[in-house]
Amino acid sequence: MSSKPSGRRRFLKGGTAALAGFTVGAIQPADAQAPGTPAPHAHPASGGKDVVAYGERSRFVTTVRKPDREARTPFGVDQLHALTPLQDQQGIITPSSLHFVAAHGGMDIPDIDPREHRLMIHGMVDRPLVFTMEELKRFPSVSRIYYVECNGNQPGRRHKTVQESHGKTSCSEWTGVPLALLLKEAGVKQGAKFILSEAADGVKSNKSLPLAKAMADTIVAYAQNGEPVRPQQGFPLRLLPPGFEGQDNIKWLHRIEVVDQVYVTYNEISRVTTNPKTPKSPWFTVFEQGPKSVITSPSGGQQLQGRGMYEITGLAWSGGGAIRRVEVSVDGGRTWKDATVDGPAHRMAHTRFHYQWKWDGQAAELQSRCTDELNQVQPTRAAFRKFWGFAPDDPSESGAGLGHVNYIQPWRVAPDGSVLNGLA
Amino acid sequence: MSSKPSGRRRFLKGGTAALAGFTVGAIQPADAQAPGTPAPHAHPASGGKDVVAYGERSRFVTTVRKPDREARTPFGVDQLHALTPLQDQQGIITPSSLHFVAAHGGMDIPDIDPREHRLMIHGMVDRPLVFTMEELKRFPSVSRIYYVECNGNQPGRRHKTVQESHGKTSCSEWTGVPLALLLKEAGVKQGAKFILSEAADGVKSNKSLPLAKAMADTIVAYAQNGEPVRPQQGFPLRLLPPGFEGQDNIKWLHRIEVVDQVYVTYNEISRVTTNPKTPKSPWFTVFEQGPKSVITSPSGGQQLQGRGMYEITGLAWSGGGAIRRVEVSVDGGRTWKDATVDGPAHRMAHTRFHYQWKWDGQAAELQSRCTDELNQVQPTRAAFRKFWGFAPDDPSESGAGLGHVNYIQPWRVAPDGSVLNGLA
Repeated sequence: MSSKPSGRRRFLKGGTAALAGFTVGAIQPADAQAPGTPAPHAHPASGGKDVVAYGERSRFVTTVRKPDREARTPFGVDQLHALTPLQDQQGIITPSSLHFVAAHGGMDIPDIDPREHRLMIHGMVDRPLVFTMEELKRFPSVSRIYYVECNGNQPGRRHKTVQESHGKTSCSEWTGVPLALLLKEAGVKQGAKFILSEAADGVKSNKSLPLAKAMADTIVAYAQNGEPVRPQQGFPLRLLPPGFEGQDNIKWLHRIEVVDQVYVTYNEISRVTTNPKTPKSPWFTVFEQGPKSVITSPSGGQQLQGRGMYEITGLAWSGGGAIRRVEVSVDGGRTWKDATVDGPAHRMAHTRFHYQWKWDGQAAELQSRCTDELNQVQPTRAAFRKFWGFAPDDPSESGAGLGHVNYIQPWRVAPDGSVLNGLA
Repeated sequence: MSSKPSGRRRFLKGGTAALAGFTVGAIQPADAQAPGTPAPHAHPASGGKDVVAYGERSRFVTTVRKPDREARTPFGVDQLHALTPLQDQQGIITPSSLHFVAAHGGMDIPDIDPREHRLMIHGMVDRPLVFTMEELKRFPSVSRIYYVECNGNQPGRRHKTVQESHGKTSCSEWTGVPLALLLKEAGVKQGAKFILSEAADGVKSNKSLPLAKAMADTIVAYAQNGEPVRPQQGFPLRLLPPGFEGQDNIKWLHRIEVVDQVYVTYNEISRVTTNPKTPKSPWFTVFEQGPKSVITSPSGGQQLQGRGMYEITGLAWSGGGAIRRVEVSVDGGRTWKDATVDGPAHRMAHTRFHYQWKWDGQAAELQSRCTDELNQVQPTRAAFRKFWGFAPDDPSESGAGLGHVNYIQPWRVAPDGSVLNGLA
């Protein structure tokens, strides 16, 4: 252990054998001494707490969700909406504590004792059934990594950061019972076409879902990232139809009625259905979300520290299945190059992409676009506007009534290294 | 919404169309009324707290880690060892708060300000380098799901639960820089064969790792499950050589020396190397862990609620790569059947398996065994004893000095539904 670092300074600029053309701008050579060893002592956050039972974050990690100030009930009441800090997230798993929340029942959420909770399946079935949580856990289960995104997750001029523009998507490993098993246990009658699911929250949130999706890959989930589903995510039970609109995920699930048509409930009509006045609007028929991606770093509000190498990284996802390709442009969409995608890419899941970029200190515009396994390509904003007949961010910058707003998000890098929303 | 559940009782016993031979023992038919809706109110745990910033568990979820009472320094000092509650875990991702801990520096862990933290790479390199955290984050990163297991994770007669017997393995999505990039940036000299990594903890934990592994897939990780690595897991930086022994994962990583041989440090000699007195012991040459699996439910200390269908589920993992097959026996290893494996199976990661079992109310012994992509098969306890010349759990039930103790764990189900350690 006698090797002594040289004291000479050397700024690495060119390429090394490691990666053609790659270097971080200003790595410092080692000083003659090893870095200092901090004195060990109890983590401050643990003062007086049981450090064994349940670990905590470092006190230096202060990333948090932010309220979505735009979230109101039709009567102007504040709602519990929380935005995931995507700009600080790594990988594809969203920590459960930072998962976005979009709840429609005001600021309160149900406080459910799982021993008292029941799931009823009734309607057009041979055998109406009620399940306890314990019974559900004896059924065959599956664990899958799936994203969930609120349809209110819409790029727009007003957003300063990726947390504001895209913070209503998150990704977890969900565990639960395939809904098909429960429906087959109850025996679905001829003529059934939809299910109507209902939450045990104060406003009895509900939503129709096509029976075909219920029978395909929808799960009744009781666990998230290894633990029971969090209260804000529907503890103890939630519906999870992967790749469908967030509003199709009924939380605090306590009732599923098998029916023969879409139900135009108050919930559907007041906030979550596609606007029938919109030209080309597929009224009550759009559920699956299209391909979407966003660069999470560098992103709005971040600051580059001088020219040199940077990692451009972000997330891509699609209701259509697995992400097959992500491309990145650093010149506002004129030219595109393939990004690296961490694999294996899971179906209907966030997929992390990486692209190495050497910034020359000039103005630049960063974009990403993705392609899914159905060969669906994420549209430009112009193409999106053309199709829908109006833009969700013009003039009100609200996409209410549209489906999944999935056009490309540009970030502008100024010569001083600041990063701004390219739509603004 | 007028469908009224029938009031008649029907106990589902046989098979349904859903799954041949499948039924939960005693699902109750729906009563004439929908399940009650709990009154919505603020989650008690949030009283006075900011419910938006950082979500919490339900107050009804009380699963915690447990201290490993056997963890002592060579001088008898208590150490911060915490066991993951595998019996309650779903899927493959371990919540970061419940990740096992095996720290060798007493009960305290370093409290590191990431702005002050440095990683030095020196020794047999052309350019000794020191990196700040900010610089490391500008390097290309990768995110991968990997398990980490302490070699002290050893089945034995003394354990009552799977948390005690196997609670020193956990699985996370880790994000970091490929160590190969940093080593190439520094320029590894001819003749280098190992790296010696050192932690910034009080006892300067250190460990040798073959250079080949350092250059292959080892990452210098700064994130875990989407967040910065937790303090107990090495915040702000840890070494992660996937599939290698837990002790090869140097946490609070601040120094890597490139060397030409294994270093027999105090840490190595006192606790973490293979015992040279053991016949066939591959002294300083065993790093990669073999294929291993365990049934997490039903497992020791749990209680079956009468005959009927149960899901047998558990985890399988291997340092040799991806899990290709998991088999389950319900008759003490006489006959085996394939379990279902949740996919895609990640390399060097926990893999969740499921098996549907109809319990007839008689005594049974449940076992699982796995096969990895190298066609390595998890050994029986008898085969393991035969190879090593002695069993780790006989007479002291300590496997100290052995490598990865990966033999099959049996759970005995008694006619009263109680589940016990089959080794006891």
